[in-house]
Amino acid sequence: MAVVDQTHDPELRSWVASAHGHSEFPIQNLPFGVFEHAGRQRGGVAIGDQILDIGAAAELGCFPPSVADVARLAALPRLNDFMAMGEEASTALRKSLSGLLAAGSPNAAKLQAALLAQSEVVMQLPCDVGDFTDFLTSLPHTDRLGRLKGLQEPVPPAFKTLPVAYHGRSSTIRVSGTPVTRPTGQWRRAGGELVCAPVESLDYELELGALIGRGNQLAAPVPLAQAQQHIFGYCLVNDWSAKGIQWWEQILGPFLGKSFMTSVSPWVVTSQALAPFRMPARARGGDDPALFPYLRSADDAAAGSMSVQLSATLRTPSMREQGLPGHTISRSDLQCMYWTFAQMLAHHSSNGCCLRPGDLLASGTLSGETPESMACLSERTAGGAKPIDVGNAQSRGWLLDGDEIVMQGHAHRPGYVSIGFGQCSGVVKPAVQSESVVIPD
Amino acid sequence: MAVVDQTHDPELRSWVASAHGHSEFPIQNLPFGVFEHAGRQRGGVAIGDQILDIGAAAELGCFPPSVADVARLAALPRLNDFMAMGEEASTALRKSLSGLLAAGSPNAAKLQAALLAQSEVVMQLPCDVGDFTDFLTSLPHTDRLGRLKGLQEPVPPAFKTLPVAYHGRSSTIRVSGTPVTRPTGQWRRAGGELVCAPVESLDYELELGALIGRGNQLAAPVPLAQAQQHIFGYCLVNDWSAKGIQWWEQILGPFLGKSFMTSVSPWVVTSQALAPFRMPARARGGDDPALFPYLRSADDAAAGSMSVQLSATLRTPSMREQGLPGHTISRSDLQCMYWTFAQMLAHHSSNGCCLRPGDLLASGTLSGETPESMACLSERTAGGAKPIDVGNAQSRGWLLDGDEIVMQGHAHRPGYVSIGFGQCSGVVKPAVQSESVVIPD
Repeated sequence: MAVVDQTHDPELRSWVASAHGHSEFPIQNLPFGVFEHAGRQRGGVAIGDQILDIGAAAELGCFPPSVADVARLAALPRLNDFMAMGEEASTALRKSLSGLLAAGSPNAAKLQAALLAQSEVVMQLPCDVGDFTDFLTSLPHTDRLGRLKGLQEPVPPAFKTLPVAYHGRSSTIRVSGTPVTRPTGQWRRAGGELVCAPVESLDYELELGALIGRGNQLAAPVPLAQAQQHIFGYCLVNDWSAKGIQWWEQILGPFLGKSFMTSVSPWVVTSQALAPFRMPARARGGDDPALFPYLRSADDAAAGSMSVQLSATLRTPSMREQGLPGHTISRSDLQCMYWTFAQMLAHHSSNGCCLRPGDLLASGTLSGETPESMACLSERTAGGAKPIDVGNAQSRGWLLDGDEIVMQGHAHRPGYVSIGFGQCSGVVKPAVQSESVVIPD
Repeated sequence: MAVVDQTHDPELRSWVASAHGHSEFPIQNLPFGVFEHAGRQRGGVAIGDQILDIGAAAELGCFPPSVADVARLAALPRLNDFMAMGEEASTALRKSLSGLLAAGSPNAAKLQAALLAQSEVVMQLPCDVGDFTDFLTSLPHTDRLGRLKGLQEPVPPAFKTLPVAYHGRSSTIRVSGTPVTRPTGQWRRAGGELVCAPVESLDYELELGALIGRGNQLAAPVPLAQAQQHIFGYCLVNDWSAKGIQWWEQILGPFLGKSFMTSVSPWVVTSQALAPFRMPARARGGDDPALFPYLRSADDAAAGSMSVQLSATLRTPSMREQGLPGHTISRSDLQCMYWTFAQMLAHHSSNGCCLRPGDLLASGTLSGETPESMACLSERTAGGAKPIDVGNAQSRGWLLDGDEIVMQGHAHRPGYVSIGFGQCSGVVKPAVQSESVVIPD
């Protein structure tokens, strides 16, 4: 199992009062992110409902010389250079931050000046994402969507021999809170008629994303045993999808059906913070083909899964107006992943492809076996055909204008303090172009 | 038709002697690029076999105040900020450079100090490519590969209603001259056996790429009439492909079969330089479905094609040793494109996707109807089944280690001075991992 050190000690408490109780950001978490305050963007770490401004803490002389350089990079307006330094550097900074924020820290009084309320800042993208790769790792998701499309072979054989993926669009990755505009495009009505119109079949897809820390060189694949060391941390990902566009255009994979926007949560929960929550990967069964050596590992610390639960909650305009918490449509976890993040990364680089610090590798829709674990509306509503009751006397086949999707994630394990991922949210805005054009056959 | 100004005047000559005769870079071309010399990277413009160091010319005070800011950006080690300024800025700098380099320029003597021989520099990527999109615009290519795969419908209906595309990998784009390492991956032998081994079916794909100048905002599609203004210029693209990997993995489009490397030529031939070579787009026939309005234009200056011819030449190790020029396998032109670059760009942004300065939109394999116009070995050799004679007593089904592919491109039009794209070349290096693993069924 993965290394669990004193930064995970369940007895450890912070002098920041809000970091206790049910906070997603107790001192055992310490996720990194970038915030904007007073017109300036800089790196920080979440603690309770506060942010420690890393640059301000550095100016106060709080970091020992051994981590001063790392802290300087973690204070920049994008975390790429910090992430590039690799596992040892982020572990060292984490340990230092844990000490600074622990109850009894001699720096506590001084550090008050480096604290900001999260409510007073605007979170930014944590890093520049050079390349975004989206995988297809849930077997139930693949099987259900394959059947929905009427495929004779819903799960193609390659699904079980390698982690299937496609390149996503980097330019439209946005931080949680950014509204998503309903895209216009070509899609077929139920009768088969092709139209160019705002898409009706707007969907969310609940995913977890890994952000690359240290990169690899071109033509230098990362072995599976080292793959985990290249993952800086994780964030929530909403892979917004315009299913009608995707189904019509998809000859060489998803394109405009996905590229109108992808949302990510702003706090990067590090691999170190998640170490106590690592668990064995899904066991391969008798129906599964043998693995090629580059995807095979006996070491779950290096290549295993994690105990992480995720949810996607719908808040309709009327729910927001009435102050209702919304209706949770999807509750899932990483156990539905046929492949681990380490396998995804090793496979990604196996052809020599270089991964760069800040690159995003997303899990694909994390749908499990049960109805409530289906992690998108396409599955929950059988492609919009069977709308589901979402409470407050409303139902949904697809997302309507004004709907908000709020994703959350948590890591739990008995004997350890639970940690959270914060939120990944977005409200659907009406299409820019509302006219619909039909081309006669 | 597009604007043709005095910078295209066929009588115009440069005081740089090598810019005459059959140079690809006469004064009518003036492509921008980034070179490294004496350990420093900076922007320049090609003229004959020389480079004008734009920063050095600026330091000599050669630019009028109206273009000084633009010149400063064009002198940077990456051209993105220059490209972002848009058409007016690059046209202004082009006119200024044309005057400076024209015979009789009062600055000629002074500018000698800002000239460098191309043979003395190492060319770099002209810009950071944030996102790389590869289209599928050749109908003959699509039809042939569809038949080769045994598809019942070799050309899917969507091919004719929208420009099909997939997101490519940005991190592995390399400048011409970078060797390509044969990738290892999963693929099926002829008998159907799945192996993990260095791929045998290594191919080139001859393409032209458009580089984005001014970008667009998220959720603000670019209308077709304005699309051309967002294209800064063009370069040659070799979309190296590992066909066996691609055919096995391709469920959500190409991934590792393409992402091991993509080569681009270093000189960006601007939209302004290509203005005289614009021509009407391919006429749509009676079999073609009607176009949706966002892809329809009567204005060929805004949305038409260009008279550009391209070639791919193979140089085997023995040809290089014997100083032979190589065997040209593919000779094609842009007339095989079912969609124009303007249509590709308008479609790309139609869902609200933002394009950023430096983004690359490639044409896809530019195969025409005739055998010699087939722009990849997959077509030329029927998927490796029918090797072709490449001269010097050699034949090729796929690329072998040591083979070099050299791509070239030229724009011709009676009454105008022809301009060239330079070269896009790469030598195949042996795979890093040479062992082959077979997984029993």
